Parts: sequence; structure tokens; C-alpha cells
Amino acid sequence: MSVAAEPVEAFLDSYAAAVWDKDVEGFMRLYADEVVVFDAWDQSEYRGRDAWAPVVGRWFSSLNDEKVEVAFSDVQATNGSDVAFASALVTYAGISLKGKKLRSVTNRFTVALHRSRGRWEVAHEHSSLPVDGATGKAVFGS
Amino acid sequence: MSVAAEPVEAFLDSYAAAVWDKDVEGFMRLYADEVVVFDAWDQSEYRGRDAWAPVVGRWFSSLNDEKVEVAFSDVQATNGSDVAFASALVTYAGISLKGKKLRSVTNRFTVALHRSRGRWEVAHEHSSLPVDGATGKAVFGS
Repeated sequence: MSVAAEPVEAFLDSYAAAVWDKDVEGFMRLYADEVVVFDAWDQSEYRGRDAWAPVVGRWFSSLNDEKVEVAFSDVQATNGSDVAFASALVTYAGISLKGKKLRSVTNRFTVALHRSRGRWEVAHEHSSLPVDGATGKAVFGS
Repeated sequence: MSVAAEPVEAFLDSYAAAVWDKDVEGFMRLYADEVVVFDAWDQSEYRGRDAWAPVVGRWFSSLNDEKVEVAFSDVQATNGSDVAFASALVTYAGISLKGKKLRSVTNRFTVALHRSRGRWEVAHEHSSLPVDGATGKAVFGS
């Protein structure tokens, strides 16, 4: 175990770079065909790249002139020989055309990777905010 | 890969049994010392068994006469040689002393296991509900 922290760290770097570049194709190359995504917003689950890709496409195109800076923190990675996973906090910061930080949100983030034909791919991703048990509202901040 | 679906399936069975029995000790034996838990409710994260155990204890003791029936569905498991993970939906149903189903809630559920000294343990768990982007409220149902 822990031969190298590479699969997880390579993924985190590629994820942040593809979001910054709003590169849907590069982003989607990280995911396995049969990926299961539990996203933070609205819909409970997306099964398969074909279900996930349009969500990513709408996200990137909704940004218009803005860019999104992704920063992972508290990363806890476990790299096996053919399966790897990590938990982290992820902060998405909206950056204006002039480089001004407009807003940000921090989610809990889990990624699980498997190696398929020599290539590491995301088999599962889970992103969320905790919910206040009393009000039923998402808890922002951290 | 996929030598056997055992680590994940053994965990899911043990988890459901320990919740039904309200067995804090049996439940906590499933978790690694350094586990990171992203729970659905209130607090963003719990780091370590010592942080997670009191939450579980309060959950079980808050049930009084009721029991909780756990059912996993849509389980997608990937079992490596030393690391394994699964995504699932989990339904928690409150059952009265007379066996009546009182209420239920369904969460997204991710578990990641690693083998340590020959024993599979939960290194990370992530449970959540999606949040409605417009209202900021948790989306129940499914």
C-alpha cells in the first residue's frame, strides 16, 4: 500500500486544472464510463459518464467570464495497488475577469479511483454539504 | 481485482446488524483509529474513532424503544487487494416496539476500506443528502 501518492494527487491536480480551464473534455477524461457521482446539488445521483458530462458542461458554460479556482485541503489519501481513494475539503472560488475573488463555497469531497487497463479513473465521487438537523438547511462555512 | 465482494459486503452486513442491535462497540469495531467521517448531519467532519464514537452513542441512545432497520440499495462495490470502496443508497427506517415502521430517510452513502494487519477497516465514510441550489434545503425522497 502507499506505493506512491500519485493516483490521488494526479487526479486532484488534473481536476483543478480542468476546472480552471473550463475544459469539459479534459475533465471528463478523468472519469470511468460507469462512474457513480453523488453531487452536492439538486439531484441525488448521476450514473455513468453520459449522465455526468452534461452537468459539467452546464457548470462550465454558466460561468461566462468568471473562472473557478479549486483548492483541496485536509486531503487524506489511501493508495492501493489497483484501488485508491481520498477524502478532502474542496473550496471553489469564483474569480472575475479582473482576477477578483467574488465568492467561495467549501464542500466535503470523496473520490475513489480504480486502475483499468493501466489507467487510473474515477469510479465514484461524492461531494456534499452537511445538513442542519433542526432546519433542514445546508450548513455552509468551515 | 474483485477477488471477492467480501470486504464491502461484510461491512454492509455488520453495519446493519450493529445498528439494529444498537451495539456501539460492535459498530465502532468496524472503523479504523484514524477514520475520517463526513456525516449527513450538522457537523462537517469527524476525525478519528474517538470523535466518531460519541456521535454513534448519542444516536443509539436517542432511539429509546425504537429500532432502526438499515437497508442498502444500488450498491456499487470495487474490491481491490488492500483497498475497497462502495457507493450505495442507505435507508434508515424507524421501527416501533410493536414492529411498526414509523418513518424513514434515504441518504447517499460511500464507504472506503483498507486492510490493516489482515483486518478490513473503514478508513473513510461519507453520508449525505443533496441540497436544493435554489432554497439551500436538503432534498429528501427517493
